[in-house]
Amino acid sequence: MRTTPSPGWPLAIPEVVILRLPLYVRVLTQLQEEDVEIVSSRDLGERLAVTPAQIRKDLSYFGRFGKQGRGYNVGYLVSALREVLGLDREWITAVVGVGRLGRAIIAYPGFSPEGFKVVAAFDADPDMVGTDVGGVAVKSINDMAEVILREGINIVIVAVPAVYAQHVVDTLVRCGIKAILNYAPIAPRVPQNVRVRNIDPVLSLQTMTYHLKSVLAREAP
Amino acid sequence: MRTTPSPGWPLAIPEVVILRLPLYVRVLTQLQEEDVEIVSSRDLGERLAVTPAQIRKDLSYFGRFGKQGRGYNVGYLVSALREVLGLDREWITAVVGVGRLGRAIIAYPGFSPEGFKVVAAFDADPDMVGTDVGGVAVKSINDMAEVILREGINIVIVAVPAVYAQHVVDTLVRCGIKAILNYAPIAPRVPQNVRVRNIDPVLSLQTMTYHLKSVLAREAP
Repeated sequence: MRTTPSPGWPLAIPEVVILRLPLYVRVLTQLQEEDVEIVSSRDLGERLAVTPAQIRKDLSYFGRFGKQGRGYNVGYLVSALREVLGLDREWITAVVGVGRLGRAIIAYPGFSPEGFKVVAAFDADPDMVGTDVGGVAVKSINDMAEVILREGINIVIVAVPAVYAQHVVDTLVRCGIKAILNYAPIAPRVPQNVRVRNIDPVLSLQTMTYHLKSVLAREAP
Repeated sequence: MRTTPSPGWPLAIPEVVILRLPLYVRVLTQLQEEDVEIVSSRDLGERLAVTPAQIRKDLSYFGRFGKQGRGYNVGYLVSALREVLGLDREWITAVVGVGRLGRAIIAYPGFSPEGFKVVAAFDADPDMVGTDVGGVAVKSINDMAEVILREGINIVIVAVPAVYAQHVVDTLVRCGIKAILNYAPIAPRVPQNVRVRNIDPVLSLQTMTYHLKSVLAREAP
């Protein structure tokens, strides 16, 4: 069966394409910083470990970015993709849980330059409530609904222990939150219209040990 | 085309299957803690948001775990999968970069119970070398090759700024490291026999804003 490129946007974009686009944006931004003006799908593919055909197909969902045989205009493509992904605006973010992990997340210097502004933090511990963590005021988890509404919070980062995570996520869903970045080592259940991404270093490590095992077996005398 | 289950293990296991197995282990461990002895592929599938057919197919790569219509023995399956993934042993781990992120990683309580033991940390800053971070001695990045060999380090976690990350990864590859967990916001290039997993919260956030954008557009008056 032949796959015809979709004629325009918005359409039903496969989730795998959405998952790749931020990587495209990152590489294109890097090219822009290197003063590269035009990039071929081949060069882009090499930097992304994706085939040139895949790149052309992915981009075809969003419009006509390249001229046949002439490559893509880096500046134009990166700003178009940033707009498609909603990266041309600020997203108001909060962190739930201000233990060691939550504090490191609030202090993480990578969010703000990319438009993710942490405006509030929540904790269940009364001793934490009212304190300041890296310039962010810690509020009671009981006031979450009110603060989310008042501050216009779009995205919530969950950094609570695993046993509390599903309960916190359920509360966030009731507060109308549609995007959750979860650091707790569980896969929370959410309704279909809510997005969750899990950050789980142990899971990532566990996907490499299978290969390490066979490397060690080959090296053994 | 009909897909026949592979007769045994080891075989060429698709990478997507390897990526799912740690999730299976996590859910099965949870079931074990709930004293569940037998689980059907249907129940397992519901907990994992994977079809029962997919689960049966994934597990068929590694042997005969279930009896037709009788479900899987949780204890047997989880220990078999832990062995397949190499999770039944300890992995000696080091962290490169002891800035705020590196310190949070060293302090992270989730690694050690899962068999990932952080035995060393490295930094380029002479003021950091010789200090102790959460019980782990910080060594010079210049001594990395020697320490990796002496301590039998298998896995290295990279938490250096983006500009240094590729250089650090290149050095690790030269030291014979085959598994790298990278927190720097770049996708490092490595030879085919080296595994890298990237932990990148900004990238994860950026895969959700596309959906958020359309949610907000629908909610707008």
